[in-house]
Amino acid sequence: MSDNKAKVIFQPSGRRGEVQKGVTLIEASRLLGVDIEALCGEKKVCGKCKVRIEEGMFEKYGIESSMSHVSEWQEEEEKFIKGEEKSKGFRLGCVAKVQGDVLVFVPEESRAGKQIVSKAARDIHIDHDPAVKTYYVEVEPPTFEEPTGDFERVCKELERQHGLENNLKIHIHTLRQLPMVLREDDWKVTVSVWMDREIIRILPGKREDHYGIAIDIGTTTVAGYFVNLNTMEVIDTVSMMNPQCKYGEDVMARITFHMTTDDGLQRMSDDIVEGLNTLIKQAVDATWPPKKKVKKEDGAVEMVEDPVEGKNYLRLTLEDVEDVTIGCNTAMHHIFLQLNPEFVGLAPFPPVIHRSLDIRARDLGIKVNPSSYVFVLPNEAGFVGADNVGVLIAEEPYKSEENQLIIDIGTNGELVLGDKHKLISSSCATGPALEGAQIAFGMRAAPGAMERIKIDPETHEVDYKVIGRDAWRAFSKPKEMKAKGICGSGILDLLAELYRAGVITKSGVFNKNQKSKRFRRNPDTKQPEFVLAWAEETSIDKDIVVTQKDVRQIQLAKGALYAGCKLMMRRMKLDKVDKVKIAGAFGTHVDREKALIMGLFPDCEIEKIISVGNAAGDGCRAALLNKEKRVEANWVSRNVEYIELTVESDFQKEFMEAMQIPHMTDEFPHLEKLVSEEILHQK
Amino acid sequence: MSDNKAKVIFQPSGRRGEVQKGVTLIEASRLLGVDIEALCGEKKVCGKCKVRIEEGMFEKYGIESSMSHVSEWQEEEEKFIKGEEKSKGFRLGCVAKVQGDVLVFVPEESRAGKQIVSKAARDIHIDHDPAVKTYYVEVEPPTFEEPTGDFERVCKELERQHGLENNLKIHIHTLRQLPMVLREDDWKVTVSVWMDREIIRILPGKREDHYGIAIDIGTTTVAGYFVNLNTMEVIDTVSMMNPQCKYGEDVMARITFHMTTDDGLQRMSDDIVEGLNTLIKQAVDATWPPKKKVKKEDGAVEMVEDPVEGKNYLRLTLEDVEDVTIGCNTAMHHIFLQLNPEFVGLAPFPPVIHRSLDIRARDLGIKVNPSSYVFVLPNEAGFVGADNVGVLIAEEPYKSEENQLIIDIGTNGELVLGDKHKLISSSCATGPALEGAQIAFGMRAAPGAMERIKIDPETHEVDYKVIGRDAWRAFSKPKEMKAKGICGSGILDLLAELYRAGVITKSGVFNKNQKSKRFRRNPDTKQPEFVLAWAEETSIDKDIVVTQKDVRQIQLAKGALYAGCKLMMRRMKLDKVDKVKIAGAFGTHVDREKALIMGLFPDCEIEKIISVGNAAGDGCRAALLNKEKRVEANWVSRNVEYIELTVESDFQKEFMEAMQIPHMTDEFPHLEKLVSEEILHQK
Repeated sequence: MSDNKAKVIFQPSGRRGEVQKGVTLIEASRLLGVDIEALCGEKKVCGKCKVRIEEGMFEKYGIESSMSHVSEWQEEEEKFIKGEEKSKGFRLGCVAKVQGDVLVFVPEESRAGKQIVSKAARDIHIDHDPAVKTYYVEVEPPTFEEPTGDFERVCKELERQHGLENNLKIHIHTLRQLPMVLREDDWKVTVSVWMDREIIRILPGKREDHYGIAIDIGTTTVAGYFVNLNTMEVIDTVSMMNPQCKYGEDVMARITFHMTTDDGLQRMSDDIVEGLNTLIKQAVDATWPPKKKVKKEDGAVEMVEDPVEGKNYLRLTLEDVEDVTIGCNTAMHHIFLQLNPEFVGLAPFPPVIHRSLDIRARDLGIKVNPSSYVFVLPNEAGFVGADNVGVLIAEEPYKSEENQLIIDIGTNGELVLGDKHKLISSSCATGPALEGAQIAFGMRAAPGAMERIKIDPETHEVDYKVIGRDAWRAFSKPKEMKAKGICGSGILDLLAELYRAGVITKSGVFNKNQKSKRFRRNPDTKQPEFVLAWAEETSIDKDIVVTQKDVRQIQLAKGALYAGCKLMMRRMKLDKVDKVKIAGAFGTHVDREKALIMGLFPDCEIEKIISVGNAAGDGCRAALLNKEKRVEANWVSRNVEYIELTVESDFQKEFMEAMQIPHMTDEFPHLEKLVSEEILHQK
Repeated sequence: MSDNKAKVIFQPSGRRGEVQKGVTLIEASRLLGVDIEALCGEKKVCGKCKVRIEEGMFEKYGIESSMSHVSEWQEEEEKFIKGEEKSKGFRLGCVAKVQGDVLVFVPEESRAGKQIVSKAARDIHIDHDPAVKTYYVEVEPPTFEEPTGDFERVCKELERQHGLENNLKIHIHTLRQLPMVLREDDWKVTVSVWMDREIIRILPGKREDHYGIAIDIGTTTVAGYFVNLNTMEVIDTVSMMNPQCKYGEDVMARITFHMTTDDGLQRMSDDIVEGLNTLIKQAVDATWPPKKKVKKEDGAVEMVEDPVEGKNYLRLTLEDVEDVTIGCNTAMHHIFLQLNPEFVGLAPFPPVIHRSLDIRARDLGIKVNPSSYVFVLPNEAGFVGADNVGVLIAEEPYKSEENQLIIDIGTNGELVLGDKHKLISSSCATGPALEGAQIAFGMRAAPGAMERIKIDPETHEVDYKVIGRDAWRAFSKPKEMKAKGICGSGILDLLAELYRAGVITKSGVFNKNQKSKRFRRNPDTKQPEFVLAWAEETSIDKDIVVTQKDVRQIQLAKGALYAGCKLMMRRMKLDKVDKVKIAGAFGTHVDREKALIMGLFPDCEIEKIISVGNAAGDGCRAALLNKEKRVEANWVSRNVEYIELTVESDFQKEFMEAMQIPHMTDEFPHLEKLVSEEILHQK
């Protein structure tokens, strides 16, 4: 082994290898394929990448390992690693550097797990007019009298039989296939034409079905709808974590990674491209072996494998994917396309480009039919991106008589308000708290995450449900719960319940007069905290608590959101909103009443608060299946007025007021009714 | 050394290396970077790849070499290697295979040398309207009030300051440069726009000059005009051999190579792409160091190096080449673009595509500004390609009141006849004889090639001039001549002189009643031949002769050309042509009177026979500098009627008649006058 290399072993995965001395443990983990959570993008501020340096196990692994084999303790670590943890050898993975052979244990809470995402396709109305259409033509073979070229013969028939214009283009890759494909099945071919103006694929014989995929690249989650462009059927919904999460949880962390790392932009782009390729392959592979619907005795329908023999099944390949549409926020858009995202993060936040782009798939490294285009939806503004445009073309508030408030809660909150006469948009820095980040025991919606929480107002006893287990704690043995942390929907429950049970006051401060043994001061920080789950109920072997700081984070998030909505209403001179639409994965899980109690958004009739699920993804799907939606997207992106909230004169005042729990009831007639009838009644 | 490898050394270059046993000597030469002439594309029919297996030099090179280390003598070799040569160890490089260590001598006549091509730019009138134009704009930086994206800001200024439409596209590669370039010189940029519709490059500050290259890919020669798109100045004319020549001299040989070799098409395409890149780099590199014009005392102007210091010189890079236009015959077009050329060689010879193509340079591997397009001129028909379209848009016969016969003599003869009312085209298989191939001592226009020949009618003494030496043989010592073979222009002289001196009869047969010692029978073949240069005057150490077979080849070529012209005139119901234009390198060198005597084309006033040089290349240049010429090219390619001559009923009869020398004088009133007054007078 050379002098400047060191052996590193990660436990419990057992992955091992040599790395350059001087790299951080996080960098080493990436090199060796170990996923360590790094929500803040290695800015040493989230404390999620805690690992333990192991000692006394030299012989077992045949390496000479000791504390001195990692770099010295740094001040930044004090904030996250205290007392016992420090003495046990815990370090921050983004701080400690490899200086010699070392054995590293990654505790479960520091592992970047697979998130469970549920982004099934909603039924939305879309007219069938895809950008890529197929045409079957029978072509005359050339003769001495008419020896015209292959391409011109095909164009002539497309014009004669289907009325296409006679000035079609063709990509060189497709042109290369043309002569052999024409002669493969007696001059009968199926031609895929993009936007009625370019031939992007030619297949022998008659083929009706062809495919496309609409992809929504979220900061955290990537979801794809795999669609039959002929029948409009959503064949499959596929999703994955955004592989860029390892560079940082939010868009600013990613932009920072680009600005502080030489090839940061390239790496993040490569990662998402590779991710998209994995996702597309997954969707294509899932179509084989073919399945058929079978009615069971009880009337239910089940999909079972259909034997291939004797059937005319065509096995799909990546080349059968002939169109791709992509929506994402402006930062994800820029990083994916390798456009410098630096200025999107810098006032006045101009994007590199607003309008939509048609980019040849192979120019992006997207492995589908190589002559196909990837349609990237247009951006509204630096902080309201193409994903919001997706929401807009799916929800069409610009066709509505009623005014609508559309809230897309992701890592950033994106707001749209208006009707057919006028639309304005803005974004607010909710931060990732509502998604579980920057919360002591916050985590993604993965197994073990507390998603529902109830606190008894009398006893302060806590009941909860975790993802991956149907039964509540009250009906389970402690050991069965295996709680690990709290995810987004649990967090909203939490704040409401803490307040309802009197654990915290209206201003969000812990009530010091409570007697529950769950309320205590942290032995290290001396700060008040409330125990949600005892160590024995967890899989991480420690109490899961909510801290005063956590409560503040949640208040900040909901305050920002509410103040944003409020200022937008004032801009539009509206006293009330007719309808609230909650988009995003958060919207699917959230309890709209609790959201209203907490004051996430202004008062509205409960019936008029609806969850529209992954509307951004639906918009991408609309653009895939109807090319006029692409025109509409460009129109709307330039006709929504973007409002920068932070420069509004009394933003700060509104924001401070909005942090209170619950919000001023005079602004919430519907909430007041709700609270008096139901919630307060229970108290 | 492993058992299936053998060491091969080529002399006199000394190149050596190991190759797989079983490869031919030609294949081994390619692997080791030695150029051996292979005019026929290794079809064992041209005999140009003769090499000598050396013996008795084992010790010197430390290898065990012997005749048994190459494969056995084959029947195909008998035709080319006889008597003494055979006993000296000569073999055909495309037949003999490596079976063990071997030392190979490549005689000078078998070396594929560098051709001297002179394709300087002609002055032709072109209106300045290039496809790529540059625009300088000063852009407003974004503010909170107007935080629009970078791209939209640039488009807005292009519209406001230059009237460009506001729906410009941009290639992703260029978009990636945009944010930094905008901020590099205070939001002042020069934007290159293609066809007024796509931004292909953005540079900081003000730049006026930008560049393009127009390339004519001939079967044998590639020529490029490197042009300043702003001033229209031709900065340089660069040229090279078509690197595909090693796969075969004519288009059919290349098509055969594709059909008989798995990756043949790819290899030939890669070779020409690499060749084009070399040519472009050569043109760009030649601009540095900068030169300036200096007037010498005698008034002459000389270019001398201009010191760089203190001057505002910009060193050009490949990225400064922003547009490329390419013309070539249909087979070269298809091979370059990797379009299957098989059907172009098969009746009814349909091309894969006629119309012009705009292909992103990077999709073709052409190393210029990566977002730029390569414009490939349209094809007329299978055997009349984009090069002929180039000739047409340069010569514009479709605007002429007079009828014109345009002859482009390359390896294939391409003919156009007509005026503003109608144009027809055809091609005729002149074969490569007029370019020096398939002639015993034929060669390319390289140093040592006899380019002018005179034969004294009395003494039959031969005087000649070779390329690379100004003095004729009559004024030189034999040793100074270093003749090596005969090139195209020499060949036409040759036939005229042989006939004029009475060496051959009108039907092309050698006159048996001549007494000159130059007339003899070949000791091996027993066929009559005539010595043009004695061994002592040559660099190849053997007599250079013209054989009966050579005369026949030349007759076939000129017969095909003449018969073609004749049939086209009949189609157009023309008795005479008003004007004859000879295009191609051949046209530049040929003596129009001799061409008329030999009956290369129908009778015409001598003054109306003009050489238009590399008109195909001029057409490419016109398309580079004027985008309307591209539209014109597509129009003319579909409005010239292509005539397949070989299916005309009396083609054969016309062809046989046309082989006579000189042609029937009743068809040549002008020739008759010429012959009686000048040539016959001399006799």
